Amino acid sequence: MSQLVPESTSARGLTAFLHEQIPFSRAMEMRAVENTAHRLVLEAPLPPNRNHLGTAFGGSLQALPTLACYGVLWTLLREAKVEGHVVVKRAHATFHEPVAGTLRATCHRPPATEVHDFLAALKRHGKARMELHAVVEGTAPSKPAVKFTGTFVAVT
Amino acid sequence: MSQLVPESTSARGLTAFLHEQIPFSRAMEMRAVENTAHRLVLEAPLPPNRNHLGTAFGGSLQALPTLACYGVLWTLLREAKVEGHVVVKRAHATFHEPVAGTLRATCHRPPATEVHDFLAALKRHGKARMELHAVVEGTAPSKPAVKFTGTFVAVT
Repeated sequence: MSQLVPESTSARGLTAFLHEQIPFSRAMEMRAVENTAHRLVLEAPLPPNRNHLGTAFGGSLQALPTLACYGVLWTLLREAKVEGHVVVKRAHATFHEPVAGTLRATCHRPPATEVHDFLAALKRHGKARMELHAVVEGTAPSKPAVKFTGTFVAVT
Repeated sequence: MSQLVPESTSARGLTAFLHEQIPFSRAMEMRAVENTAHRLVLEAPLPPNRNHLGTAFGGSLQALPTLACYGVLWTLLREAKVEGHVVVKRAHATFHEPVAGTLRATCHRPPATEVHDFLAALKRHGKARMELHAVVEGTAPSKPAVKFTGTFVAVT
């Protein structure tokens, strides 16, 4: 069973934060639909994110997993009560099939030991790096439409 | 001297096409400011593309060079009078410094021989692939804030 994280880092809390701080997330009508101790799921409807073919635009398909990974780190920092900010340093995406409906990006949390080391490094050095993976769902559960890897740096 | 491309593929023509076909480009207030036989330059103001730190959001910094590369291929197809569409298959971005003002992405056209082979393959096989590079300008001309590489596929 998923363990719910505290209210401030709820899906609703994260959505409100992103909408306020990153206008782009509002323009793409993104919202967090799940933010548990296991994973973060973001959704965005197709119409504001469509391309010339009526499927999801490549830019949206990079932005949504970027936000999903960012959201996981934002949540981890808040849970650990660490004041800091997170930026992306590297992003890699491969596109395997078009997305013809709602865009849905999932980022699973890294293993607990990795999170522990990340937070320890951040507290000790004021800076820490983490690589995260996210996918945008495809038509079949086992075959993502987009595979995304991002390297993020947190600074206190 | 840059040679201007025909009116339908002018910076204004491309901007109109993207705003109509990709709502996202309108939401980020992107516009093409130069589309010559040498390069395509897109700009977007900071406010709709800002992040929680008041600099450019990583998603916008991936979307703008994606659109710049797409725009170059769109222009090449139109100039060659080839009916076809273009999709992104792979995208890689590295972020070297924050962008604190207008976002400005440049994609230089590939060498003429590469363009020739691409168009020949597209006409012969109905499908062709091309890798393109784009940068988002940084504070110093020789040091881009973002380096982007995209692999695109055109299909007739």
